[in-house]
Amino acid sequence: MRNLIEALSKVDDHWSARRVVSLNDYEVKVVKVQGEFVWHTHDETDELFLVISGRLTIQLRDGDVELGPHDIYVVPRGVEHCPRAEEETHIVLVEPRGTVNTGDAGGDFTVEVRELD
Amino acid sequence: MRNLIEALSKVDDHWSARRVVSLNDYEVKVVKVQGEFVWHTHDETDELFLVISGRLTIQLRDGDVELGPHDIYVVPRGVEHCPRAEEETHIVLVEPRGTVNTGDAGGDFTVEVRELD
Repeated sequence: MRNLIEALSKVDDHWSARRVVSLNDYEVKVVKVQGEFVWHTHDETDELFLVISGRLTIQLRDGDVELGPHDIYVVPRGVEHCPRAEEETHIVLVEPRGTVNTGDAGGDFTVEVRELD
Repeated sequence: MRNLIEALSKVDDHWSARRVVSLNDYEVKVVKVQGEFVWHTHDETDELFLVISGRLTIQLRDGDVELGPHDIYVVPRGVEHCPRAEEETHIVLVEPRGTVNTGDAGGDFTVEVRELD
């Protein structure tokens, strides 16, 4: 059993996901985010965002999706997106194991999912 | 975009899941539960429980797992379990599309996932 708030309390950086639980070949991760990420696409999978605290903007080429606490949104596979948060925002991600955080974009934000300390 | 609290506010019964979003071939569902469910097993899949409000006991043959708000627990495939809640408790489930709520047990609690009204 894991508590999402406790898990997030152990995260001391931004844009670096920590694995909380696995579900078959999927992973549930917590991430603290602030600032703007990078535009990218996951061609192989949808990606689920759930906001725990704060405000998350998921920028899409068609317009922005604004998420607050308990808001859940799935970016469909193949849809370019770029998350952004003005304030520090705590989120949960659900996606298949091995999904690269920056998708097809690569670059400095690319990190592997980490275990909680 | 869906809000989990708003979704739960539209649920007017117990033990009948409503689909909130899909993620590839998985579904995220909200359910209100109270009382005791039925002992059952999902042989084909893990099952993720996240408590939004209230208290959920997941009875296992090895002992109970007690969940409160923001607690997350995955029942591994093949593990017999029986959820129970003294008070009305609001939860989120994540599992593959087509997962039968009562697993191998069948019986009166068996219902298909419904769309939110």
